[in-house]
Formats: sequence, C-alpha cells, structure tokens
Amino acid sequence: MEITKPYLLFLGDAKDALAAKTAAGVVDWRRDWCVGQIRLPGCQADVGLPDLDLAEGLANGAKTLVIGVVNPGGTLPEHWVDAIVEAVEAGLDVANGLHTKLGDIPRIAAAAEAHGRKLFDVRHSTERFRTGSGVKRPGRRLLTVGTDCAVGKKYAALALEAEMTGRGLDAEFRATGQTGVLIAGRGVAIDAVVADFISGAAEWLTPSAPADHWDVVEGQGSLFHPSFAGVTLGLLHGAQPDAFVVCHEPTRKTMRNVTHALPTIGQVIDATVAAGRLTNPDIRCVGISINTVALEEGPALAALDAAAGAYGLPACDPVRFGVAAIVDRLLAEFP
Amino acid sequence: MEITKPYLLFLGDAKDALAAKTAAGVVDWRRDWCVGQIRLPGCQADVGLPDLDLAEGLANGAKTLVIGVVNPGGTLPEHWVDAIVEAVEAGLDVANGLHTKLGDIPRIAAAAEAHGRKLFDVRHSTERFRTGSGVKRPGRRLLTVGTDCAVGKKYAALALEAEMTGRGLDAEFRATGQTGVLIAGRGVAIDAVVADFISGAAEWLTPSAPADHWDVVEGQGSLFHPSFAGVTLGLLHGAQPDAFVVCHEPTRKTMRNVTHALPTIGQVIDATVAAGRLTNPDIRCVGISINTVALEEGPALAALDAAAGAYGLPACDPVRFGVAAIVDRLLAEFP
Repeated sequence: MEITKPYLLFLGDAKDALAAKTAAGVVDWRRDWCVGQIRLPGCQADVGLPDLDLAEGLANGAKTLVIGVVNPGGTLPEHWVDAIVEAVEAGLDVANGLHTKLGDIPRIAAAAEAHGRKLFDVRHSTERFRTGSGVKRPGRRLLTVGTDCAVGKKYAALALEAEMTGRGLDAEFRATGQTGVLIAGRGVAIDAVVADFISGAAEWLTPSAPADHWDVVEGQGSLFHPSFAGVTLGLLHGAQPDAFVVCHEPTRKTMRNVTHALPTIGQVIDATVAAGRLTNPDIRCVGISINTVALEEGPALAALDAAAGAYGLPACDPVRFGVAAIVDRLLAEFP
Repeated sequence: MEITKPYLLFLGDAKDALAAKTAAGVVDWRRDWCVGQIRLPGCQADVGLPDLDLAEGLANGAKTLVIGVVNPGGTLPEHWVDAIVEAVEAGLDVANGLHTKLGDIPRIAAAAEAHGRKLFDVRHSTERFRTGSGVKRPGRRLLTVGTDCAVGKKYAALALEAEMTGRGLDAEFRATGQTGVLIAGRGVAIDAVVADFISGAAEWLTPSAPADHWDVVEGQGSLFHPSFAGVTLGLLHGAQPDAFVVCHEPTRKTMRNVTHALPTIGQVIDATVAAGRLTNPDIRCVGISINTVALEEGPALAALDAAAGAYGLPACDPVRFGVAAIVDRLLAEFP
C-alpha cells in the first residue's frame, strides 16, 4: 500500500503551527511531493506552500489530499468532513494520520466508494503480519533509538537517509509512525499493531535486501519509557539493526508524559546492545543525535562535543549541523 | 466484563486431548465452575466431566457455553455453528478463546441479539486502555516470567494463587492469555492489545489494592523470545511486580517456534530485574518453577535441587510437587 503522489496538504483550521506539524514534516523532507496547501477559514498554520483550491491542486497534478493536522485525541472534526468529501468527489485519494478512520465516516466512505478513490488510514495497517521469526535477513539496517519519546528519531533517520543517498549509497527511510508513513508514502505505524506482531511487523517493514542496501529505520519510544518500552523492544528485535544511533534532547528533565528520569545516553547504548544482540549479535552504536533546538549555538556545539567525548562516538544535530560525521563512522564500521 | 458461571464446556469434535487443552485447563483449576462437557460426534477428547446435552446442562445451572477447543489458525469451524446457535437459543452465554469473533458469525450474532445472550471473545478486549503511567500502585504483585513461551507460567501462577489463598492470604490470579481468562472468568489477552497499550492494559488488569493484597499475574512470552519480547516487557512494566518467579522447561533445546537457544534461568533473573526496576525498584526473584513433566521422578527432583542450588532460590514443579517452598520464600521476603 503506497500513498499516491504528489500531495495536496490539508491544514484544516489548525490553531497554531504546532498543530500542523505533520504537514510541516512532509514539507521538510518531501517538498518535491507537495503541490500546495489547503487551509480552512481561521487556520493559523502555514507550511510555506502555495494556497490552492481543489481545482488548482488537481491542475498541479495532486493525487492525494494529506490530512496534515493533529489534534488532541486524534479525532477528525465534523467540520472537516465537507472539505474531505469535496476532495474525494473531485478525484483525490485521502491519507490520514489521525486515530479516526476515514472509512468510519459514512459520508467519506460513500464518496470514496462512489468515485473509486482510496482512503489511507496510516495509523491502521490493513496488512496481516506474521509473528517475528528472528531469522537474520540479508541487507544492512540502521535503527534510531532514543533516551525518550519525541527526541528526534524520525528526523535523525531522515537526515541519515538524505546524507547516505547524497553520497551515492543505497539507503531508504523506513517509517514506523504516522507522520513517517506520510513522509515515506508507506510504512507501518508500529505502535498501532497488535502486540503479538510488533517484531513481525518490523521484519515485514525491513525485508531481505541486497548486501549493500541500508534500511534506515525510524525508531519509536525508548527502552526506558514505562509506557512504550515494549514497542521499542519489539521494533529492535524485528529490525535486527547492524547499527544504531541514539537520539537525545538534552534539556528534558523527565520522560515524556510520565515522571520518570531520563536514562543517560550510555544506558541506552548498553541496553540496546544487550537486547539487540538477540537478533543481531554484531549490533553496535555508530553515533549520537542530539536535538539542540533549545540551545544557543555555543552551548549546542559544546553539548555535541561533550557527548562525543564521553562515548567516543560522533555526535550531531541532524537538523542544525547535519549527520556527516555519523555516516563517516557508519562507513568506517561497515566498509 | 466477567464471564458468568457455571460453565458448560464445549469440546466440539476435538481430534485429540491436546486440542481440548483449554477445557482441560479450566477443569484443572476451576472444577467447581464446570457442570459438564458437550462433545460432537467424533470427538477424541474427554476432560472427565459428565457428558450433558443442552437441557441437562441448563438443568445443572450452566450459564455459559465455553468453547474449550483450540485448532490451528484459531478459526471457528462452520460445523460448530449449529451447536453454538442452539446453546444461545437455549439461554446460554458463549465464551470463546479462538481468534474468530463469535459476533462476526451472523447466525450466532443474530441468535445472541434475539435471545439477549452475551458473547465473550476473550482474545478481543472491548476495554479502551490508556497508555501506561508507570506510577507505582498500592498492593503487592507477583509475576511469572519464563525462559520461553509455553513453559508453565499460567500453571505456576494458578498454583501460587491456590497455595497462597490456602494459607489465608489475599491473593488473586490475574489472567493475561485466552485460556487464563476463561479460567479466571475475566482478564485481558495481553498479546491481542494494540502495542501502544501493553503496559497500560497491564496496569488496568492489576489495579490499586490493599497493601496486603497479592495479584498473581500470568506472564507471557519471554524477554529472550525474538517474536514476543515486546509483549513480555510491556507486561513487566505495567504489572510492576514486587516479586517474580522464573518458569522453565529443562528439556527444551530451542525457543518455541524459532531457532534461538534458550537463555539460562540466571539470564532471565538478571534481565527481569534490570528491566523491571524501571517501574518497581525493589523487584526481586522469589523462586523458580520447573516443568518436569518430561522427566522421571528422580531426575525431576535432581533438576529442582540443581536449580535451587545454582541460584539460591526455592525451585518447584507446581503441578507435580507444589509451590509451598516458593510461598515460604515470598512470605519471608514480604512479611
């Protein structure tokens, strides 16, 4: 199941820029796939694309309306339904990362049926997975892991894919979250898979590949997060990474949405190696990715230097300074 | 959602005793809840209950027909539907541990609707869980963990509950698999929960309780099983056990359904303590449960002695010799 490109991004009446972070992510990493944005009255977000109506979007080649807005609860507001139905009637597929399934809204389902359009609910895979086999597959894999949720695992993976393909390597981002799936055009929201099939879904997502191919797999959660560590472990076992990069946000005091202290980068390295060896005995850490957005440039560079020195690994901010040093290390470790 | 007792156990046309292991488990642990068995022509299983027809079952007080048979794929055979519909029409609820949902079979759904009977699909919780909070709850919890799947975690937990309640302790078995749910009359098939909610479901299953209450939680999978470790970890984090018992089958050479070697009991103890500390810093191992069914009595006792000596913990076969020594240790550790 691959979402058809190019995209027309629907921002709805997003109340601020953060509410449109899904659309912003798509634009950051797949600008070429985006022909424009559609905003409803009152929308306070702008992802920097041309404002188009449906006819203009179609004239510019749009194939899929992407719901690029998140909201508390992940439900689709009733007052967006008219716009989505109109898009379907005009000939667009629709892709959606909210919890609400498009097909569960009768008017949208009926319009899609009547006009032969596809509805992509990226949080709800229709794939039937097998349980994980644990059998090592050909091809190389890199996984981003984290000291916490929401520390930049997706952006680190995308930056690594960009740096690697820019150097002529055969590398492909593998999405495991709803925004990642919209950015990749395919993937699996791994936290929405039935628990029995976490590692099996990760195996499906990163199949056998040529020996020099790298899957760059978006990590989820943290082995140290009391809400989500099971997802993280199943993904680690299924992805069988040869290499991993630890992602970290240095100003955070407690794990996201809970009161637990953050682990150190070193604890994450040790725990990831210990658990990851079950399905890849040669697993190793090749770098540290630090989200320094909350720091001035001087302290940001100092934080990277400190982490690099402490662990003997390249440390980068993928958005601010790029990930060249991590890819250098990766190529040194896996010539 | 609690399954109404007593049960009438449906064995269908089970091709051998193993196919009726769900029913056998219910009889082993909840004989008092079972009024009889219903067998179709050709049934090769017998769980030792009186053979009753529907009228006799109802006359003996049966409230729920329990589908006590498993089959490859977990689907409900078409030729059982008549018998199930008749049971519903006669006034029984139906409980089912197969993957197939009773309500997805139109004739069964229609009969339940028409006669106001309940259908319990124990693999498919209708509860909406929250993500795990990681916040420590009052009450005591014991979790059975394993070197592998299918090594006796459910039987160990049930034996511990029986020994503890027999000594007057306030202890309750908490079911996390479909057979366990039928034995307990309630619970959550934790491997069927959406991955994001594994630890949250475990928190829901083992709620705040009086300080001297013990939840005895049925473990799932193994931290060392490449297919299911994510489920095991989420359950460990959500259950927040004070105490755990490691379950082991000494003649097994590889992990179930995969080619990986079994971990040692010591590796399981260390990994469980390391991971479990995240939500319960005082977690400790209080015993070893060894399934010695494949051994003669002499070698069985020797295996228990060897494990007890190697780890300085009581080692029991819960079915063959009981778990008194583990409960002794538990009470010494938690007076």
